[in-house]
Amino acid sequence: QVKAAMVTCGGLCPGLNSIIRGVTHSLYYDYGVVTPGHIIGATGGYNGLSEPDEHEMINLTPDYVREIHMKGGSILKAGRGGFDAPKICEGLKKMGINMVFVIGGDGTQFAGHLLYEEAKKQKLPVSIVGVPKSIDNDVLFIDRTFGFDSAVESAATVIRNAWVEASSCEKACSVVKLMGRDAGFVAAHAALASNIVDVVLVPEVKFELEDVYKQVDLKIKHKNFAVVVVAEGAGQEYVSTGAKDATGHTVYGDIGVFMRDAINKHLKPQGGRAFYIDPSYIIRSVPITSTDHIYCSRLAHDAVHTAMRGYTGVCVGAIHNVICMFKSKLIASGKKKLKVRGSTWQSCVQSCQMPASLSGAKTAASA
Amino acid sequence: QVKAAMVTCGGLCPGLNSIIRGVTHSLYYDYGVVTPGHIIGATGGYNGLSEPDEHEMINLTPDYVREIHMKGGSILKAGRGGFDAPKICEGLKKMGINMVFVIGGDGTQFAGHLLYEEAKKQKLPVSIVGVPKSIDNDVLFIDRTFGFDSAVESAATVIRNAWVEASSCEKACSVVKLMGRDAGFVAAHAALASNIVDVVLVPEVKFELEDVYKQVDLKIKHKNFAVVVVAEGAGQEYVSTGAKDATGHTVYGDIGVFMRDAINKHLKPQGGRAFYIDPSYIIRSVPITSTDHIYCSRLAHDAVHTAMRGYTGVCVGAIHNVICMFKSKLIASGKKKLKVRGSTWQSCVQSCQMPASLSGAKTAASA
Amino acid sequence: QVKAAMVTCGGLCPGLNSIIRGVTHSLYYDYGVVTPGHIIGATGGYNGLSEPDEHEMINLTPDYVREIHMKGGSILKAGRGGFDAPKICEGLKKMGINMVFVIGGDGTQFAGHLLYEEAKKQKLPVSIVGVPKSIDNDVLFIDRTFGFDSAVESAATVIRNAWVEASSCEKACSVVKLMGRDAGFVAAHAALASNIVDVVLVPEVKFELEDVYKQVDLKIKHKNFAVVVVAEGAGQEYVSTGAKDATGHTVYGDIGVFMRDAINKHLKPQGGRAFYIDPSYIIRSVPITSTDHIYCSRLAHDAVHTAMRGYTGVCVGAIHNVICMFKSKLIASGKKKLKVRGSTWQSCVQSCQMPASLSGAKTAASA
Amino acid sequence: QVKAAMVTCGGLCPGLNSIIRGVTHSLYYDYGVVTPGHIIGATGGYNGLSEPDEHEMINLTPDYVREIHMKGGSILKAGRGGFDAPKICEGLKKMGINMVFVIGGDGTQFAGHLLYEEAKKQKLPVSIVGVPKSIDNDVLFIDRTFGFDSAVESAATVIRNAWVEASSCEKACSVVKLMGRDAGFVAAHAALASNIVDVVLVPEVKFELEDVYKQVDLKIKHKNFAVVVVAEGAGQEYVSTGAKDATGHTVYGDIGVFMRDAINKHLKPQGGRAFYIDPSYIIRSVPITSTDHIYCSRLAHDAVHTAMRGYTGVCVGAIHNVICMFKSKLIASGKKKLKVRGSTWQSCVQSCQMPASLSGAKTAASA
Repeated sequence: QVKAAMVTCGGLCPGLNSIIRGVTHSLYYDYGVVTPGHIIGATGGYNGLSEPDEHEMINLTPDYVREIHMKGGSILKAGRGGFDAPKICEGLKKMGINMVFVIGGDGTQFAGHLLYEEAKKQKLPVSIVGVPKSIDNDVLFIDRTFGFDSAVESAATVIRNAWVEASSCEKACSVVKLMGRDAGFVAAHAALASNIVDVVLVPEVKFELEDVYKQVDLKIKHKNFAVVVVAEGAGQEYVSTGAKDATGHTVYGDIGVFMRDAINKHLKPQGGRAFYIDPSYIIRSVPITSTDHIYCSRLAHDAVHTAMRGYTGVCVGAIHNVICMFKSKLIASGKKKLKVRGSTWQSCVQSCQMPASLSGAKTAASA
Repeated sequence: QVKAAMVTCGGLCPGLNSIIRGVTHSLYYDYGVVTPGHIIGATGGYNGLSEPDEHEMINLTPDYVREIHMKGGSILKAGRGGFDAPKICEGLKKMGINMVFVIGGDGTQFAGHLLYEEAKKQKLPVSIVGVPKSIDNDVLFIDRTFGFDSAVESAATVIRNAWVEASSCEKACSVVKLMGRDAGFVAAHAALASNIVDVVLVPEVKFELEDVYKQVDLKIKHKNFAVVVVAEGAGQEYVSTGAKDATGHTVYGDIGVFMRDAINKHLKPQGGRAFYIDPSYIIRSVPITSTDHIYCSRLAHDAVHTAMRGYTGVCVGAIHNVICMFKSKLIASGKKKLKVRGSTWQSCVQSCQMPASLSGAKTAASA
Repeated sequence: QVKAAMVTCGGLCPGLNSIIRGVTHSLYYDYGVVTPGHIIGATGGYNGLSEPDEHEMINLTPDYVREIHMKGGSILKAGRGGFDAPKICEGLKKMGINMVFVIGGDGTQFAGHLLYEEAKKQKLPVSIVGVPKSIDNDVLFIDRTFGFDSAVESAATVIRNAWVEASSCEKACSVVKLMGRDAGFVAAHAALASNIVDVVLVPEVKFELEDVYKQVDLKIKHKNFAVVVVAEGAGQEYVSTGAKDATGHTVYGDIGVFMRDAINKHLKPQGGRAFYIDPSYIIRSVPITSTDHIYCSRLAHDAVHTAMRGYTGVCVGAIHNVICMFKSKLIASGKKKLKVRGSTWQSCVQSCQMPASLSGAKTAASA
Repeated sequence: QVKAAMVTCGGLCPGLNSIIRGVTHSLYYDYGVVTPGHIIGATGGYNGLSEPDEHEMINLTPDYVREIHMKGGSILKAGRGGFDAPKICEGLKKMGINMVFVIGGDGTQFAGHLLYEEAKKQKLPVSIVGVPKSIDNDVLFIDRTFGFDSAVESAATVIRNAWVEASSCEKACSVVKLMGRDAGFVAAHAALASNIVDVVLVPEVKFELEDVYKQVDLKIKHKNFAVVVVAEGAGQEYVSTGAKDATGHTVYGDIGVFMRDAINKHLKPQGGRAFYIDPSYIIRSVPITSTDHIYCSRLAHDAVHTAMRGYTGVCVGAIHNVICMFKSKLIASGKKKLKVRGSTWQSCVQSCQMPASLSGAKTAASA
């Protein structure tokens, strides 16, 4: 007798509702989990499982989830923190839950691994299956994360706004900050997708301000404007705060504002200026693209099949377009990065006509 | 023999290209101004007329402008400053220009008035006709400014993003900053259009932070999240800088960031948080809506008819949907504001279910 | 003690959900109609009131309608027929309903008038207030119908598709059929909004095929392609069926397919061809634009205010942007048409550069 | 000394401009083909190469192609027919062209193969490299065709319109016709992407009308409406014309109209009806998605690299996301079809909850 729970952890990412819907549908229709209250959504991430009395539990049915994939966000609310393996196990026991679907980033999946170990220790018969989430697309092994396609589509639109702005003013340079704490996938793909960008700055490639100025000047000379895209984790050496947040993550300095100010200062004497766009939450709250929704549905169904086959402590994801299974511990053991010598980044360099100094050529040996 | 020039001044606003296209078409097809080089666009605002040698002059033809209305921005580049009436008159004389179309805000139209006076003094036979521009919709007399409909559409989309974000997190409050230095039209209309906002703060209505907190708390209690929209000119008493920019405009403090921080601080103790979105240039660089394009075309044609009939020192705009003519000096004599007791603002108050304390009821006597 | 019902009649039109939401909100929040079951939606148009047992009644609450304005269609389902005044009065009596909001076209509003007369005869204390609906914008007196702005936006997008198609093939002519049984407002406005159309055919202006061919040939000669927009009610003399449908409306012949075939036949010998797009229901099922939603909200609130003040047998609509009240009988007494000598149609003629033969100039005397 | 020509053949498909732009950029920037007139586009498909005097030749430069990827269609105009290998070879010789990029479907690539053979026979030093095009995604071997992602996105939007329409009327069934002459990829993917479809009919699966009626009735009973998606090549046994067009292709009967009429007739007696949407050219004229544009850019660059390395008579396409090279003859040797027992179709069956009778289960043995 299956009783399943779902949680969505961390920040928003397009596709959460698609996965919630897909898991619900698969449980209900493929495996006949039709008893009311046997498919539930805990709200607020792990908090909802640790403190079930303080967070609404939602009964998920095909009717309830019918249209949720058409809007962004998560009907289960995404939440950080709140992980307490023994407490969660206690709750699972009390509620009779024997299947948990964990949708979240590497930290969440590592917590999923710990929960699996705790459950094993307690001989609690529960399957814990993860769907790795990262709008930055920096999850190891898999082709791409869900939501990434939607984020790139949305980011490319913002870049187009920035391009309109820059090209409608004399000697202007637009600066767009995009996601990417440790990996520049969103920035690089959005630049390739819009194909109207002159500089892309990513965490994987160190850069000198002087080289950015040179490229901006060259492009302004050539076509009277320039567009710069900067991933939030790029150039941290210029803006490092040294601080850490409550969960131990480094607090990043704001490279977007820094680049805006630097370029503004550089262009002012020649009569130019910078325009800055930080789309922030706009990117991650969009409805999902078709491609992404299909991918989410597949992930959801395969997560259910995996749990039903009795696996636990694992995640699902696609490799060469085939959905595979991974130890959650493994997924959480690192982050994928842009290969500086790989075709994505080098296409990006070529498409922006960036000079060697900004291409990572110098540092690629170590990358 | 007509020789006409156009300039676009100030910041971007949706519809500039539609007007450039409409003026070109009307001159060419309605009045037969087909001689090559007799319809020109000066780039960079008044700079292009003051210093024609340093700014590209664009020959505008029906072919050249055919598709420009499909994208945002201005093909003539929008620019600030550079106004020098005697110098411009000299240039007009030299180039043989006898018709100038000036697309820009109140400052631009006042400059248009000064140019008209200088031309009169010099007995220069030139028609100067303005199309008032303000994405804030704060132009006196007229029904609405061009581009306003597009800005509201675009702002409503961003509010929807903010709503997805807030409603997908526990006890969250999204804060969206929108245009509106002196008038809250964009904020109020976007709130009415999206119909998912709980607080709207506009320059016309003073507010106490305590009252905002109460409303946010109430809404979070009721539905677990809240959405706040703040016009950039609202609550300046909290963030006043005292500074003025080069053109004498007051430099506004950043009320968006201030509200984000204030609400964050207020919600933290109860386990909530704020999400902040500043769409900035995203709003003003969008392609135009259908309604706006039709309006721009009408304005453009009527601007040409007005110039052709020999008027000068005037602007065109719609009153009760009929295009009228105004002295440019008059248009520049003030700014339209939301009527605190009018139906737009009171619909907004009602739609957001704002309490009396945030409705302007107290201060309306003086408004 | 108010007990209110709503119906949506006829075909879909953007904005129905906005009005349902607005009426519900106004009753609940402005007038305190909070008793459960005192705001109801009858489904399937008048059928839902005539046969309440066979059609679901929906209890409308602020929670229920919260997000319905974000998608197209009608949560009450739109339906034709089923009008039976005595039967409806009986049902209203039985259910204790004393307020009916009728959202529908001229036929629906005339039925509303008959219902009002029947209720008067029976001394039934009920307010019947209509909101006139016509995606064709052919309602007498008022500035524009709700949903029209959204329909034009959507139609302009389809015209852009047609333009891409035509301009990407040699000697091609795209033909787009748009709404407009008796009036060409959608066709004319969509042509003005997209500004890439060469021929617009509307019911108000008779045309000779020969003149269409000439214009198409001229444009193909000039720019290698042409775009023709035809309202469904145009040129009925070429396709007349003579038939009437169940409700007595003339069944129109398919002028779109006719024009496609005629133009195809005309272009074939010179190596050209026609591309035909009939967007049909795509136009009317779109989500609403911002401008339209604000308009719908105003109409809804004013409909409630009107009913609350005790008026009955009336409709609401905007004149010069002020919401006014009209006898329903009056609204149903005719249909608004494009004025052939008016500025909308003549702007359209000018923008398409149509020759006199297609401009209605000849027949305008009688128009 | 490279002199390159491009042609786009057959019907429109999203991405043609992206490829034209990518090929131009790669030739110019990667290989230094900067001599004016050394990168040309022949218009109207093969006609432009066979009859260069009658079809405009366009000089392609980075400036010329800068923004073309932002709109749909093909700046080279897509055209059918006109293939004459000896004549084309003659023209290539005369113009000194030694590199031809052929963007088109299987027929086009087979013609590319014939051209390669003719050139070989004539010892003409020319590289002929194809980029296979099929909006139906029915090209052998490769992961997916360019433009397919955009077509699915666009088709999913239309399905959403159909769903709004059906769900806003009592006992209604929307019928949407989508591309897919021989393969149901667009229909199946769009159904999966929108996830609101009840029946999908594809060429690969034979169906009985009775089974469609049963499923429609069941869904209408359950949720009061249904949505049917039908690929244009499905159920040809019901509508077969027997005719062939000029190029020898079978003229398909209109299964969309047939299904509309059949379902209408079936539903009428129970008080229901069908709504029909044939989006036709709307799907194929849309601007490209981000994912598709990136794919097109890669294909374009790799086509150039392939030609530069001296290959000829070959096409490029991605297998497992790696761009590969194929004999053009091979690509033209058949068409890819949906695997009836494969995961795409079976996910579709499951997502629509189609019965075995519509799933192809019976006929799968032979598939």
